[in-house]
Amino acid sequence: MEEITFRPIGIVRSPFPDKFGVPRRSGLIKNLKAIIELAPEFSQPGIEKGLSGFSHLWVIFQFHKYAIKKTWSPTVRPPRLGGNKKMGVFASRSPQRPNFIGMSAVKIDGIVRKKDRVYIHISGIDMIDKTPVLDIKPYIADSDRLNNTKRGWIAKLPLKKPLLKVTFSSGVREFIKKNETNASEFIKLVREIVAQDPRPSYLRSHPRKGQKSEFTFSFGGYDIGFLVKEQSIACINRIISL
Amino acid sequence: MEEITFRPIGIVRSPFPDKFGVPRRSGLIKNLKAIIELAPEFSQPGIEKGLSGFSHLWVIFQFHKYAIKKTWSPTVRPPRLGGNKKMGVFASRSPQRPNFIGMSAVKIDGIVRKKDRVYIHISGIDMIDKTPVLDIKPYIADSDRLNNTKRGWIAKLPLKKPLLKVTFSSGVREFIKKNETNASEFIKLVREIVAQDPRPSYLRSHPRKGQKSEFTFSFGGYDIGFLVKEQSIACINRIISL
Repeated sequence: MEEITFRPIGIVRSPFPDKFGVPRRSGLIKNLKAIIELAPEFSQPGIEKGLSGFSHLWVIFQFHKYAIKKTWSPTVRPPRLGGNKKMGVFASRSPQRPNFIGMSAVKIDGIVRKKDRVYIHISGIDMIDKTPVLDIKPYIADSDRLNNTKRGWIAKLPLKKPLLKVTFSSGVREFIKKNETNASEFIKLVREIVAQDPRPSYLRSHPRKGQKSEFTFSFGGYDIGFLVKEQSIACINRIISL
Repeated sequence: MEEITFRPIGIVRSPFPDKFGVPRRSGLIKNLKAIIELAPEFSQPGIEKGLSGFSHLWVIFQFHKYAIKKTWSPTVRPPRLGGNKKMGVFASRSPQRPNFIGMSAVKIDGIVRKKDRVYIHISGIDMIDKTPVLDIKPYIADSDRLNNTKRGWIAKLPLKKPLLKVTFSSGVREFIKKNETNASEFIKLVREIVAQDPRPSYLRSHPRKGQKSEFTFSFGGYDIGFLVKEQSIACINRIISL
């Protein structure tokens, strides 16, 4: 079939510069904010008119960090199944898929027009920084909110899996208080991100003997390190400005 | 921004060869069926594994009949507002939009693998024949079914607008009975399609004096004509095999 070419309408400005640590779906961390910055050519007068009356937005985007590698496979090992069972890629929401298209429902916090550019403030995101946006559409319950849906292989899993309990080293806590104007909100977000257990599932279910379970993710201008002490306790023990 | 190129994963086989008559959103006519035919290169073994356990599917596609013309405008006149009020294109689900990307939630009726090709039977469609499909994803209520959403400018409108009452001329009825094996189901579908009032909104609200309100749409291998007798009664009075 013939190829189709798209021009991104803008990009996402997100506190996550990279994949590790990003919530596995939209809406998981309600207060995780980002901005969709529309490109000048898609910021024409009136293009956003009426959008602020909707509470939620669909963002159709490209998983660009995966698209660069160009690799996808007909089957995937969903983290929700512990990473050891295969499902068809079309039965999953895996980012590593044909065309690398993502689709997330997010909350609209506000729309700002500044210097002939449109900025859409959103929350509940699961996108990384510089994500190219292909389209945005209002969430319309009439067609999008379905009743009596069946959750396929996900149905076998609990709606909320047990989360990690997260503690902070006193050094990290002090650092955040010194550097962030809204420290308590920042601490809360870091806690929620790590509580989701961003570790790859093969390390989660089979930690190697003697291996230090240290991980680092980048968020809001920092590299943040955590240590998984037991199966269910994570300690934030390092933070470095990027 | 850099352009992004996609390879369609397949096409939709739909009873609508053209735009006129197609329901204005997915799920409006529950029994309207179509088939997503995956291209050979996207029909690898296992690619659909686990999909049949889900009840619903997101189809991300290209509004190709609009994409050919390449025209879109920053503002649109939504039919739901009578066609005389302007809204920003990003506050609408208009097909005539940047990148011409559509997104519909449909029901999965079944998945068939035949001669190394995958065919996904769906219903509740709003897509025309030969629609290029960019991606399919399972509908997952956890992230897709939102609560307490606000419907923006659509909130001013009733959830279901008054529908047309549809009658059939006896000639058309006889023709369908002779030519269709499941005539009653076919009649029911035609009735539901016309009941949605596919007329352009400017003709709906301001019928020209003396103008015959005759319209023709193509469906399931036929050209079907109807006549709007009064504001709310449509008579199916013509049918021709294509």
